[in-house]
Amino acid sequence: MIIPTSLKIDSQRLRDDFDDLAEIGATLSGGVSRLALSNEDLEARAWFANRIEEAGLFVRDDEVGNLSGVLFSQAADAKTLLIGSHLDTVPNGGHFDGTIGVLAGLECLRTIKESSIDLPFHLEVINFTDEEGSWQSFFGSMGLTGILQETHINDAQQDNAAFRAALFRAGIRPTEVHRAKRQPETIAGYLELHIEQGDRLAQANVTIGVVTGIVGRTTYNITYYGEATHAATTNMVQRRDALQGAAQFITGVHQMIQQHYPGGVVNCGNVNVQPGTFSVVPAQVSLLVECRHPDQTILADMQAHIAQLAKQCAENHRLGVEIQLVLQRPAANMHPALIDIIERVCEAHEQTYMHLVSYAGHDAQILSPFTPSAMIFIPSANGISHNPKEHSEWASVETGATILLQTILQLAQTPLASGLTP
Amino acid sequence: MIIPTSLKIDSQRLRDDFDDLAEIGATLSGGVSRLALSNEDLEARAWFANRIEEAGLFVRDDEVGNLSGVLFSQAADAKTLLIGSHLDTVPNGGHFDGTIGVLAGLECLRTIKESSIDLPFHLEVINFTDEEGSWQSFFGSMGLTGILQETHINDAQQDNAAFRAALFRAGIRPTEVHRAKRQPETIAGYLELHIEQGDRLAQANVTIGVVTGIVGRTTYNITYYGEATHAATTNMVQRRDALQGAAQFITGVHQMIQQHYPGGVVNCGNVNVQPGTFSVVPAQVSLLVECRHPDQTILADMQAHIAQLAKQCAENHRLGVEIQLVLQRPAANMHPALIDIIERVCEAHEQTYMHLVSYAGHDAQILSPFTPSAMIFIPSANGISHNPKEHSEWASVETGATILLQTILQLAQTPLASGLTP
Repeated sequence: MIIPTSLKIDSQRLRDDFDDLAEIGATLSGGVSRLALSNEDLEARAWFANRIEEAGLFVRDDEVGNLSGVLFSQAADAKTLLIGSHLDTVPNGGHFDGTIGVLAGLECLRTIKESSIDLPFHLEVINFTDEEGSWQSFFGSMGLTGILQETHINDAQQDNAAFRAALFRAGIRPTEVHRAKRQPETIAGYLELHIEQGDRLAQANVTIGVVTGIVGRTTYNITYYGEATHAATTNMVQRRDALQGAAQFITGVHQMIQQHYPGGVVNCGNVNVQPGTFSVVPAQVSLLVECRHPDQTILADMQAHIAQLAKQCAENHRLGVEIQLVLQRPAANMHPALIDIIERVCEAHEQTYMHLVSYAGHDAQILSPFTPSAMIFIPSANGISHNPKEHSEWASVETGATILLQTILQLAQTPLASGLTP
Repeated sequence: MIIPTSLKIDSQRLRDDFDDLAEIGATLSGGVSRLALSNEDLEARAWFANRIEEAGLFVRDDEVGNLSGVLFSQAADAKTLLIGSHLDTVPNGGHFDGTIGVLAGLECLRTIKESSIDLPFHLEVINFTDEEGSWQSFFGSMGLTGILQETHINDAQQDNAAFRAALFRAGIRPTEVHRAKRQPETIAGYLELHIEQGDRLAQANVTIGVVTGIVGRTTYNITYYGEATHAATTNMVQRRDALQGAAQFITGVHQMIQQHYPGGVVNCGNVNVQPGTFSVVPAQVSLLVECRHPDQTILADMQAHIAQLAKQCAENHRLGVEIQLVLQRPAANMHPALIDIIERVCEAHEQTYMHLVSYAGHDAQILSPFTPSAMIFIPSANGISHNPKEHSEWASVETGATILLQTILQLAQTPLASGLTP
């Protein structure tokens, strides 16, 4: 099978889809609100299903609300190559995040179908449910990969009744979500086109970002316990001031990550002090802390040292400390063979590219332990995202869609299509 | 004039007053709520006026609601020796704070009146309005000394309508409060008996604290301004993290005060972070800070260094900083001649005593620049105050009242009565 590298997407058709969809959930400030499972999200799904049908593709939906269009292969025992992203947004978010991955994916299916090329794999464009986490981040991709837990819907710690009601309303039955799991041996891989949401491509004046990995993210609620005493009459040395332990940790954890973990980031995002008045020594101080690193082994090492530092700061000030793990999402590696193909496609099409680590989370992070996965980034104007000002030049979107299409076609001509291992 | 040093207060009568008053504003948890200008406070004043009348003393009230009993001297051009404290309390406070100073003062007047001693000064027991600051700390003593400002009642920064309504209800006309000012040349001095509200006397097993000074107190609202950026995609070094500046200040200001200002105290009592989430670098962090020192010159030096440190921490992290002075109350020195008399009285009555600095504020702090002032402390059980558990042994109260009585009598026999200068 010879596949023409001159095959092109229809940029105007993609643009028309983009403009149509932009009206669903449009906000007065020029942004878009399509929160997962909301009226606007359901309307966007219906619109997407119509586009799939119009294109003569097969509509597939699953038990966690993922919605796909499929271009079937004639090959016996063909696996499925997934391409996609998400149509849901944060409140008053931008028009590019997620959307371009789904729409460019659809455009690739249409282009290939119209060229009558028979791929050696089924090609499936997928819109994942609730990537942004209006209810549960990566709900759809966790359902598809079978890592959704009972506690993601029924949590003893919090009331998820509204979430379950929203699921029912969208036709998703909480008791059936386990049926959305796909068998990894049926999947050839996953490709996701996305905006960078940072300004590294723009700063380097490079067109395409080839993602090598997505950082792991761990969040904590760290609480120091001291003693509320009168700040005037209690000797400074005798105090058990919870804020002194917390302040030492805030300073120390930044120094530690900068000195010993290049490539890692940490943030102390909030501080809550009790009782919180001028004249009372702080008795209880809670910190929101998150850390990220692209290498899972190093992230685990970072975590151990963060916990050690938190305890050391407590000891230094004779405080109690409680380290509550809130969320732990492992780092993900993109598949080297897919990275290699994307690079060769960029070279063949004379597009500049660079390797990037993604510091934001994506569905590809959930897919990568399940199937060979890769991401293609295009530049974000000023690095702004999750904001009505989020913007990418249309030429960048077109280039990204072209690289996605050509990557699919290249993949079809390699043994990788059936032979990749995650 | 020979004054018998064997003159004794009537401990049972004082105790009966104490028990009677304890019922006004008594709370279910065993504490007392007599917030200034409340029904309970007004009831306590009425009760106090009745006691004054019963004792055959002159009832005086002034334009800021201070309520006094006066035992007049027969001497020509007699000045007035003020003794007293306050009957108002914090919400659910204790039964001793303020109260024993007023009740012991009344008992001294009764005892001296009954012994038919003619003092060389008028003796006035005074209950000051709102010492605790339900509306305006030291409202009564600031009125009497003439330092009450228009802004204490009419403040452009906040709505004081409820305060003015409460004043009217208590018979205090906001436009007339300036009339409460007394002429310093008519006042011989001020003595205040009070509980320690700390545990230094108990720890040292000493009966009487002779207060040498009351700390000055300065409070600030310090705000650091950085930039809210995505904590995952912003390089750690490029961030302008307001919390890093704040944390360095919190740690640094404690170290500075402990190393360079023995006798000084500082507290960072609250932290507010904006926007306050895991994944956003803190853009704005506000701190409540207070510092105290018994020496006004050193306190001023402390303040300068605190401001310098706050700015340095901002520079270190490329932040903006705003240092807002909230309150500034100067340190007060008790009068050496009065301290000397109290010490001699303790020795004559075989009571152990020690010098103490008061880290809490008292009306004596407001009176001291106006007239020679002194304070006598008695031990507080476990140092607990502003709490239903606040307690002092009755024997301590009796001893304190005795030392107060004997100090008055000693003062009557010295030229100090008419000759002290503040």
